[in-house]
Amino acid sequence: MRPTPDLSPVEERPVLPSGFVAGGMSAGIKASGRSDLGIVAVTTAGPASAAATFTANLVQAAPVRLSREHLAASGGAARGVIVTSGCANAATGPAGDDDQAAIAGALATALGCDPAETLCASTGLIGTRLPVDAVRSGIAALVPGGLRADDAGLEAFATAMLTTDTRLKAATTTIALPSDDDVSPRPIRVSGVAKGVGMIHPRMATMIAVILTDAPADPGLLASLLRDAVAATFEQTSVDGDTSTNDTVFLLASGAADVDRPRPGSGQAAALGAAITAVCRSLARQQAADGEGATTLITCRVTGAADLLDARAAARAVVRSNLVKAAAHGRDPNWGRVAAAAGAAMRPDGTPIALDPTTLAIGLAGTAVFSGVPLPFDAATVKAAMDAPELLVEVDLGRGQAAAEAFGCDLTEAYVRENSAYST
Amino acid sequence: MRPTPDLSPVEERPVLPSGFVAGGMSAGIKASGRSDLGIVAVTTAGPASAAATFTANLVQAAPVRLSREHLAASGGAARGVIVTSGCANAATGPAGDDDQAAIAGALATALGCDPAETLCASTGLIGTRLPVDAVRSGIAALVPGGLRADDAGLEAFATAMLTTDTRLKAATTTIALPSDDDVSPRPIRVSGVAKGVGMIHPRMATMIAVILTDAPADPGLLASLLRDAVAATFEQTSVDGDTSTNDTVFLLASGAADVDRPRPGSGQAAALGAAITAVCRSLARQQAADGEGATTLITCRVTGAADLLDARAAARAVVRSNLVKAAAHGRDPNWGRVAAAAGAAMRPDGTPIALDPTTLAIGLAGTAVFSGVPLPFDAATVKAAMDAPELLVEVDLGRGQAAAEAFGCDLTEAYVRENSAYST
Repeated sequence: MRPTPDLSPVEERPVLPSGFVAGGMSAGIKASGRSDLGIVAVTTAGPASAAATFTANLVQAAPVRLSREHLAASGGAARGVIVTSGCANAATGPAGDDDQAAIAGALATALGCDPAETLCASTGLIGTRLPVDAVRSGIAALVPGGLRADDAGLEAFATAMLTTDTRLKAATTTIALPSDDDVSPRPIRVSGVAKGVGMIHPRMATMIAVILTDAPADPGLLASLLRDAVAATFEQTSVDGDTSTNDTVFLLASGAADVDRPRPGSGQAAALGAAITAVCRSLARQQAADGEGATTLITCRVTGAADLLDARAAARAVVRSNLVKAAAHGRDPNWGRVAAAAGAAMRPDGTPIALDPTTLAIGLAGTAVFSGVPLPFDAATVKAAMDAPELLVEVDLGRGQAAAEAFGCDLTEAYVRENSAYST
Repeated sequence: MRPTPDLSPVEERPVLPSGFVAGGMSAGIKASGRSDLGIVAVTTAGPASAAATFTANLVQAAPVRLSREHLAASGGAARGVIVTSGCANAATGPAGDDDQAAIAGALATALGCDPAETLCASTGLIGTRLPVDAVRSGIAALVPGGLRADDAGLEAFATAMLTTDTRLKAATTTIALPSDDDVSPRPIRVSGVAKGVGMIHPRMATMIAVILTDAPADPGLLASLLRDAVAATFEQTSVDGDTSTNDTVFLLASGAADVDRPRPGSGQAAALGAAITAVCRSLARQQAADGEGATTLITCRVTGAADLLDARAAARAVVRSNLVKAAAHGRDPNWGRVAAAAGAAMRPDGTPIALDPTTLAIGLAGTAVFSGVPLPFDAATVKAAMDAPELLVEVDLGRGQAAAEAFGCDLTEAYVRENSAYST
């Protein structure tokens, strides 16, 4: 598979940037007793700069509403992030808002900061209440004694976010950021952890992910870099076409690294943005690959689009198609379903993309199968090539120069089994 | 379940309106030897008035392109309809267009009419060519000797359309149409047959369906009535979220009934429109109930919407949700998925609907489960009520007076099995 240009190389492991401590534990939210409470705290003198994107679902969970309020009140400053799993605290009415505010208050007291300097996210069953007293006890147990300034702390935090995930999702990269008044670039690190295996079809927002960097940055620059990164990565990911009530991405910059604060529009800002995007892309791919019941990651790479919106829409439509997903599961080179999915793709404003079957070309697992007309190919060879942990679907629209990619997974009987009996 | 107001009562059986003959046979398109060629012909002195809606997919099948051309050239006049199954004749390039034109030419010769007075539709695997000689031989065998002026003829036609359908889909209604100058209303009949079990998510168009009436009507009026009927029925149906390359609805009016030609805007036109909508609604429900692998029809009825577009979007979003579909399969009263699906619904222009969780109410199989806050309910009772051939999901947005419904089906392991190995 061709590498995506202009993105930093990423390692899939939890590495804690300087300026943070992190930890996780079982607070008793999950009946299984598995880890369900994670906290990241900022250790620099001042708070970290923070930015976030949230779900566009109109049914927004209490932690989404509260984090949005806190970010606005603090002007993008954060001292701590708390993530709970096993309960979404969504569609719980005013009582759910009260629960979340009580938890934020307990975290603020433990950290010695203003409640507006805390951020929160939660994931799990919609319509159930958080056990506030148990979460309060968990906070008291974790802060400060249970928080660690090492990679194991971030791993514990990432583990506490998981629900039906089968794998921890983490990504990290370092880049050298040149200073304005210094010829020798100095390293900064961007790391991220995420959860998400179902109800994944982020829109104007994404799943729960926490991105940390030791770079210094103003909240406004962080928000802009995060928006671009999320649009190219998490929003191009679909497990089941369902948009969650709890999607949240936080980006915190501690500023502990010894580099200058990048100015918007500068080369340093672009380099930081590319590192953030690389981490988000890796996390999005890990989410899709671990989609409920999935056996293969599907990457759709669209080229030759009239513009970026067309490219993104076409790639998303292909990885979202239940029929493409089922064909991928059967290692069935049924490329007509790719053509049909791309042909039905719509831009965000509901208008069709620019697509003409006569200039359309499709490749499956490295073999060209359609180019205006069906191409002869050896089905057994393509079928064998599709039997891999990742399936590349290439779509060239032949209408321009824009390109994009999207990530999904196959649709399996295991997905149906897992989701036919979740709440009961 | 409450009856839908203002629609004529419908029987689910093929009844041929006067002014038509119909038949079907095995022409050898399907390897299985099952029936795969159906023809309806008009027996009145003049041609029938005709209207159609087609798929909005940009990858349009050859029969869709040809029928569109023919309707434009004939000004909405038709002498015959040919439907082939087992091959979509989509994404087949110029050769596929030539194949379809040759078939239209053969039908026109057999019927003694202009090729522009023929309409065609096809369904099956994308990317394969029609066996033109076999279809030509079939036409010669079927016209005129194999076409019958009775219900068995329409049944044979409907059977020839089927692919992975497990049941024939037919609907019929009669209404009394008052004449302008006559106090005694006279009966007209509207009948329809359809196929479709997968790649069903019609948009600005629908699946293959043929609606016949003996009422007289101008093509312009038919087009207007059909557009309204399709928007309320077929376009509110989703089996898997995938929009076909071949969706086609034809509406033919023979004028054989002894009634006046309804004027646009008249009470007669409205009555004819309601009958057409009732037949389309029944066919759409039959399609959803026979969705690939389905065990239950899901009807989502949305009320209290700010406007009709919001109501339709919310209902469609609920029946399209893979997670709602999987919960329906598990008879799992996991209403949070309904809230999340409705909350992510988008209008055709990509903007969100008017939805506020505090005024949202949800009912499952007759039990109220959410009304701004979660309501206590007996899960075992609701689970038992969900174990039925039809599941009613009620969503009240509490924002206005508009209402709509949508039809879908549960997502099952059988759907995945069936679609994991289709072409190979």
